[in-house]
Amino acid sequence: MISGSDITAAAQRLGGRVRHTPVLKIDGATFGLSHALTLKLEYLQHTGSFKPRGAFNRMLRASVPKAGVIAASGGNHGAAVAYAAKSLGVKAEIFVPAKTPNAKVMRIASYGARIVQVGAAYADAFAASQERQSQTGAMVVHAYDQPEVVAGQGIVGKELEADAADLTHILVAVGGGGLIGGIAAWYGGRTEVIGVEPRGCPTLHSALRAGGPVPAEVGGIAADSLGARQVGLLMYDIATHLDMQSVLVDDAAIRAAQRWLWEHLRIVVEPAGAVALAALQSRAFVPPEDARVGVVLCGANVELANAEIVS
Amino acid sequence: MISGSDITAAAQRLGGRVRHTPVLKIDGATFGLSHALTLKLEYLQHTGSFKPRGAFNRMLRASVPKAGVIAASGGNHGAAVAYAAKSLGVKAEIFVPAKTPNAKVMRIASYGARIVQVGAAYADAFAASQERQSQTGAMVVHAYDQPEVVAGQGIVGKELEADAADLTHILVAVGGGGLIGGIAAWYGGRTEVIGVEPRGCPTLHSALRAGGPVPAEVGGIAADSLGARQVGLLMYDIATHLDMQSVLVDDAAIRAAQRWLWEHLRIVVEPAGAVALAALQSRAFVPPEDARVGVVLCGANVELANAEIVS
Repeated sequence: MISGSDITAAAQRLGGRVRHTPVLKIDGATFGLSHALTLKLEYLQHTGSFKPRGAFNRMLRASVPKAGVIAASGGNHGAAVAYAAKSLGVKAEIFVPAKTPNAKVMRIASYGARIVQVGAAYADAFAASQERQSQTGAMVVHAYDQPEVVAGQGIVGKELEADAADLTHILVAVGGGGLIGGIAAWYGGRTEVIGVEPRGCPTLHSALRAGGPVPAEVGGIAADSLGARQVGLLMYDIATHLDMQSVLVDDAAIRAAQRWLWEHLRIVVEPAGAVALAALQSRAFVPPEDARVGVVLCGANVELANAEIVS
Repeated sequence: MISGSDITAAAQRLGGRVRHTPVLKIDGATFGLSHALTLKLEYLQHTGSFKPRGAFNRMLRASVPKAGVIAASGGNHGAAVAYAAKSLGVKAEIFVPAKTPNAKVMRIASYGARIVQVGAAYADAFAASQERQSQTGAMVVHAYDQPEVVAGQGIVGKELEADAADLTHILVAVGGGGLIGGIAAWYGGRTEVIGVEPRGCPTLHSALRAGGPVPAEVGGIAADSLGARQVGLLMYDIATHLDMQSVLVDDAAIRAAQRWLWEHLRIVVEPAGAVALAALQSRAFVPPEDARVGVVLCGANVELANAEIVS
């Protein structure tokens, strides 16, 4: 299993290549919640999501071949791999499914990667990327199921504990499970880390019920970010080892959390970035009275209809 | 003049009523700048701008009469006074000009204040509020030119120094000057605090040229927030005492800074909130090579054309 020292080593390896993102501590009472909240503003990371942490750690851990790197992604991981590749001066080829939002495709392109848009969902793009990789020999940077990737995402937990040492519960959105796996591995049970999943892509929930990763449906408004067909083996191992739980939220709760973040905090996130908060608002997860709850806001790659941002 | 101990006392008086907003430290090189940047994310404050700091300090410093409080505002100060009044259980009456954006009027209304929308610009709404105050006897909470208000805004400087002690230059937008006056008073010359103003509302610039506050034009895209007709006497006193400078930016530079914040950092601010950053990008202010520059992002009360925030 990924250990705290793997994550500490990843943090040292990455140095200033990723941002130590800030936390915002707010009084939940203002918003009808009975406990303090600490929001980890991870959407302020390079490329608009946490993903560069794992991508850099994978690419710095071994030498990248001349063929460069290859990745499949719903969008955010692809942008992170493209960004890291540009920063390290290596080639990148990114496979995304047809449903990847334009904001994410444009972002990947802006970092100079070659983009292949293929298949209906992440798993289809992944299959296509595997075939291509067998021809090129490029280094695979997996979206979630590689130890270096999970350890890199775990730096989010390390930073969160440094900035808010007293948290009792931390809510994290789950797709393939790289982020929550890394955070849970960092805490190793010192703090309860709870998975939150859209009812439309319940990868961890399904795995915990089935006794192992199984294909889950891929749908709903957060599917481009959380629509891995099944949770990663590394994450599943961490989840069972730490006896983790996963709660489900529906799309209406996700939209409500997005709106709440904008109306009360002037924070814009993508649907996946609001999933963890939605668990509190919808009462899918009700913390004990004296809880001190952390919520990871993990991504913000949406398209604003009005790019001019008027006043 | 406002002193550091006035600001420390204000911080103690306010306690947890305002948020200690986080900073984000970024490498300017990513964005074509040759120095590190520390962004003070003050738009994450209650009501979407720094204004509650001064409003609470004014209202807690003396007892509020039964008639409550009264304020004139381009919008953000009114929202802050309404929020503080609701929080303290007193009545509030807010005068805003016709051009106050709908997002701000709605926000003021959401806190239960009585709103009077009158006149073309802030100064007209202020005159109407004075007439009304002579009838009601309500406590005036000035948008910038009261010692308690300036000292309250100065807490932004206190927090910034606590979180980023090594800054050499700090850029702050200027309207009436309450925010920059408080921040400059906090630092007292230890760090250079530079005013940035839209070319359309150059209150401090005009005052420094004329040798005292004089009426300036009120126009451009940030006028609802920075369109005081002239800079406050308290701020002018601080500016001359500390030999401060003010630089000007045009509306195109402000829009570019807004877009840059969204594209690179997924931060949405209103035009006034991007004014300070615009000085760096437009090279209206060019810091020395080894500078460590702070930029205050002071407000985010814009209307998103698409409130659903799609992905």
